[in-house]
Amino acid sequence: MNAVHEAARPPDFADVVAAAGRLQPWLKRTPLISSDELDALCGRRVFLKCENWQHGRSFKYRGALNALLVRPRSTAGIAVGTHSSGNHGTALALAARSLGIDCHVVVPRDAASVKVDNVRAAGARVWVSEPGLDAREKRLAALQRQFGLHLVHPFDDARVIAGAGTAALEMLAERPDLAVLAAPIGGGGLIGGTTLAVCGAATGCRVVAAEPAAADDAYRSFRSGERQRLAGPPDTIADGLRGSIGALNFELLQRYVDDVVTVSEEAIHEGMRQVLRLFGMLIEPSSAVPVAAALAGRIGAPGECIGIILSGGNVDFSACPFLAGSPLSNG
Amino acid sequence: MNAVHEAARPPDFADVVAAAGRLQPWLKRTPLISSDELDALCGRRVFLKCENWQHGRSFKYRGALNALLVRPRSTAGIAVGTHSSGNHGTALALAARSLGIDCHVVVPRDAASVKVDNVRAAGARVWVSEPGLDAREKRLAALQRQFGLHLVHPFDDARVIAGAGTAALEMLAERPDLAVLAAPIGGGGLIGGTTLAVCGAATGCRVVAAEPAAADDAYRSFRSGERQRLAGPPDTIADGLRGSIGALNFELLQRYVDDVVTVSEEAIHEGMRQVLRLFGMLIEPSSAVPVAAALAGRIGAPGECIGIILSGGNVDFSACPFLAGSPLSNG
Repeated sequence: MNAVHEAARPPDFADVVAAAGRLQPWLKRTPLISSDELDALCGRRVFLKCENWQHGRSFKYRGALNALLVRPRSTAGIAVGTHSSGNHGTALALAARSLGIDCHVVVPRDAASVKVDNVRAAGARVWVSEPGLDAREKRLAALQRQFGLHLVHPFDDARVIAGAGTAALEMLAERPDLAVLAAPIGGGGLIGGTTLAVCGAATGCRVVAAEPAAADDAYRSFRSGERQRLAGPPDTIADGLRGSIGALNFELLQRYVDDVVTVSEEAIHEGMRQVLRLFGMLIEPSSAVPVAAALAGRIGAPGECIGIILSGGNVDFSACPFLAGSPLSNG
Repeated sequence: MNAVHEAARPPDFADVVAAAGRLQPWLKRTPLISSDELDALCGRRVFLKCENWQHGRSFKYRGALNALLVRPRSTAGIAVGTHSSGNHGTALALAARSLGIDCHVVVPRDAASVKVDNVRAAGARVWVSEPGLDAREKRLAALQRQFGLHLVHPFDDARVIAGAGTAALEMLAERPDLAVLAAPIGGGGLIGGTTLAVCGAATGCRVVAAEPAAADDAYRSFRSGERQRLAGPPDTIADGLRGSIGALNFELLQRYVDDVVTVSEEAIHEGMRQVLRLFGMLIEPSSAVPVAAALAGRIGAPGECIGIILSGGNVDFSACPFLAGSPLSNG
């Protein structure tokens, strides 16, 4: 793994398997859940992987902790840092705290307030930047100079990608009959790791990435064969998917992903509402993106078994139309 | 158990233990969950038993299935029937279906529509009555004459009470340090069974029943020492707690329950919102009643470990102010 943390090349299946073993004692066992009614609505058997119940309430804990567990010995005693719209920041802060390391997190001004609160509550020092990847990276670079931080990028880091892939590995172990595995795509770490797990496990499963139409850089990158970036901060409720796809993940996307589909904002709301109605479970808008695609019949073929990674469960009540009727006093 | 199904006397601890063994292969293992933030809000360590994830999404499956598993041999091949504001009807229908028995359910006109849909989806034949216990019982008696039904009362039945008590037994097995166990009270089956489990396990745990102030018959019964009934259908969002306490459960209430506390409608909404915010989990208003009491500091003493039974998770979106902002098209 020594070369891997340099992030110069994408990780491979062996890195995902090694991460799974390394992370196992630290992770919550998140279940695969299903509902006959959801199956009927989608025309497929649908299994939802509940990473919204992972530590920090998102899959991000997998990648963040993996990065810290394999960090170079030379970084011992050095604080870690990252930029994050929220979930990766919380995950890195939790992972750092459990290993006794200080953590600094740059958060864009437009991040969901509940996520920023979570980053703080997880023990990190929070620094606010302007929205957009450039502003975030610039702020983080300045902090790195100031504090000599060891950086863990939220998605364009081989250790983070390998860690993220362990969720798909668990899904395939539990349901080897999955014909398609779908996940949301923003920076692409979850999809990158998922493709590695799926291709390595060689069960014949396909991988589909789902993206908000309002932030369709991965869709355009996939179609054009050239990595596209978003012009500015996109107008989507899926606050976890506002970043552009990373370089390593674009490589994995081109090599292994079968399709990228986009969904409307309205469909994302409906995905959240259906999961709340059918499972009594509130998922964050990013998680609802592949659910929306499945409800529209755009993941897999009728009758197939499909797996969807619910990437997280941190919801900004005030930003969600159907939850904002009477906003929480302290939410 | 032969005498028990006659419902002439309350069940005892041995009935709860026998029910636990009998039901074990059929039940979902529902977890006890917790949150540091909820602990801080309540000033106690709080553990929530997720019966909202039980079959039929409520604790009622325990009592309904127990009743059917110990029903007299003479009833073999005979359809079963009950009246229910919804969750017991669904539970009995599910239990009956798994044993190959027909099921008839009388549902009051004011029951949550999602619950009535669930009763139907679980395979029961649904009959609508006027609201209120008298109207429900009258309608059911007529059906019994017509179809020769074997009746399973939603709460005033020793088999149902014993089954309901198995949830508390599981909680005490997992957390023997619980100082108080709290549950909502309507007809009283859950509290009745809970007291039996708690007293029998003899861990020194106390039992508190929580009730909507708008349907405070159990509170008044407890204080006065005489069973009180509600004058008419009470105006509470907690649709599962609109019935008056049953005779057997009143006996258990007097004998074993330490306190009955009431909460406002506003506090019930806030309880639902906090559980949704902290756990991403939608619970039904009845479940939020003891949560509301805990948030108000009225369950146990500061620093104690308290257990709360989340009785169910079937929510009528249209009746819930903070979910009704944009009602589900098909919810």
